[in-house]
Amino acid sequence: MADAAAPPTPSAPSAPSELSAPPALFGGLEAGGTKFVCLIGTGPDDIRATTRINVTGPAETIEAALAFFRRAVAAGTRLEAVGIGSFGPVELRRRNRRYGWITTTPKPGWSGTDIRGPMLAELGVPVGFDTDVNAAALAEGRWGAARGLRSFIYLTVGTGIGGGAVVEGRLLHGLGHPEMGHIAVPRRPGDHFDGICPFHGDCFEGMTSGPALAARYGRRAERLTGNVQLEAVELAGFYLAAGVRSLTYALAPQRVIVGGGVSTMPGLIRAARSELRAGMKGYPGLPEHGRDGFLVGAALGSMAGPAGTLALAETAAATRRDSLRRARL
Amino acid sequence: MADAAAPPTPSAPSAPSELSAPPALFGGLEAGGTKFVCLIGTGPDDIRATTRINVTGPAETIEAALAFFRRAVAAGTRLEAVGIGSFGPVELRRRNRRYGWITTTPKPGWSGTDIRGPMLAELGVPVGFDTDVNAAALAEGRWGAARGLRSFIYLTVGTGIGGGAVVEGRLLHGLGHPEMGHIAVPRRPGDHFDGICPFHGDCFEGMTSGPALAARYGRRAERLTGNVQLEAVELAGFYLAAGVRSLTYALAPQRVIVGGGVSTMPGLIRAARSELRAGMKGYPGLPEHGRDGFLVGAALGSMAGPAGTLALAETAAATRRDSLRRARL
Repeated sequence: MADAAAPPTPSAPSAPSELSAPPALFGGLEAGGTKFVCLIGTGPDDIRATTRINVTGPAETIEAALAFFRRAVAAGTRLEAVGIGSFGPVELRRRNRRYGWITTTPKPGWSGTDIRGPMLAELGVPVGFDTDVNAAALAEGRWGAARGLRSFIYLTVGTGIGGGAVVEGRLLHGLGHPEMGHIAVPRRPGDHFDGICPFHGDCFEGMTSGPALAARYGRRAERLTGNVQLEAVELAGFYLAAGVRSLTYALAPQRVIVGGGVSTMPGLIRAARSELRAGMKGYPGLPEHGRDGFLVGAALGSMAGPAGTLALAETAAATRRDSLRRARL
Repeated sequence: MADAAAPPTPSAPSAPSELSAPPALFGGLEAGGTKFVCLIGTGPDDIRATTRINVTGPAETIEAALAFFRRAVAAGTRLEAVGIGSFGPVELRRRNRRYGWITTTPKPGWSGTDIRGPMLAELGVPVGFDTDVNAAALAEGRWGAARGLRSFIYLTVGTGIGGGAVVEGRLLHGLGHPEMGHIAVPRRPGDHFDGICPFHGDCFEGMTSGPALAARYGRRAERLTGNVQLEAVELAGFYLAAGVRSLTYALAPQRVIVGGGVSTMPGLIRAARSELRAGMKGYPGLPEHGRDGFLVGAALGSMAGPAGTLALAETAAATRRDSLRRARL
């Protein structure tokens, strides 16, 4: 953690009505499997401080994140709330005693890690908590490629595949959170690759994630060139479209947004659109499904997750205000 | 349409405060591909009148349904609202000029049929409209196997496969409605059946619906006996579990309820539970997924759809009351 958190510079005009207090800001923590991103601000275009932490053990990594916020508060930042978007699986049921934990991850040492608790204890402000991909979905909905939509899916295709859905304006939750990377995909004719998902072998993630492509082609997708790259784009386009098709039939989104490292392979989104049209066979007859705007790349890139944690913080703050108001009535 | 609509007999005690008016009731129309069910009442245990209409052409069939409600109103029934649950695909976007229509169905003569319009024009009360399977999902949530749950999926496996989802207490809508029967399923090892979906061949419906089983075994699933029946249950259990697995990863439901003719094959739900446990491989580690209560048969049987139309009517009435109240403020 080399880069220090600069004290926030009040670049936005502050309201003159509260003379002594600086304007309240939000804190965010994108807890990824290889790095944590901490930030303070109000949105992707208003980030006052940020730092990246390489992930080691849970105690050490969480302490480094806390130190970032501690320094910012000491330097005068008034945090109204914090949002955490975490790698998972995580426990999202508020009444569960493990709410805010990373539950059973293959990542060594991290199963059963309470990530929300230490933030709440140290910072004493409302702490919103969700998956990293749900945070990114929120951000694309608010500032990115899904602005103005009520129902959409955000997929990230990188070291794994994760998905979040917004349904009528709200993040989809149920028994925990979706695991869209693990839906089944049909096999491309003639493809005998086994898939690399440790659980399901040839599920969506097992066939389409960055490591799946690397296992097929012997190097990372970003480093492929020439005909091999064209072939990889065609293949990844087939499987991306296959996953998007089933998710579209399951969830009826207005749009599907795809982020993550693999999504930036040149020509991939175009190839997937074409495969999607071919695979849906015109069913159920909605012209929207055939339009380019139905399947698009992410607009916020790697900022989607971090910005989304600020949106989670804002929601946590609003929820707190609502419950205080109700308590006063 | 042989059976006449009996005038509603006021078996429930009516409130004495409104001396002249009978208590308001709801009307329901389950518009299926082969029969229409019309009913008047307040729920599955309080049905005052009902009739079944064999489906012929749209004009004639809709007129027969209207005649049922017309006679009931003439006999003194006070309809507060009507709900329609229709076969589809249907147009559910309220601002679309085809809202309330059956859009592009393979059923001869029925594409582009306005089914809600004539009911609204004739009866002059609020008319709720949704898919037949969404209506059934509502009914299972209110009176059946999903009582008390906030997030669940209802599947019907019969001549086709349809699915509806309730997410945090509300029916899932987006760009239209889900088409869960058309998600992809992985092939059972050694199975070379082509599938019978006219669009996708071997999708969930193409491999698992009643006609798919009939095409494999040469007769309807209900008529199979002995070892062939055991084999069919094992196979249908595999594919039902495969579909449920992907839908669970996509939507994170608290429970999946399965209705429809195929769901009543003896032993099917048990076989599917066992295949589901095997197929999920313990991912993402939620013990709930392994419990018998996660995947259950429907509680309301063939009453789910008709009862659900009464729930749609009730929602339409409540929506109308809310908007009148807001207009008065």
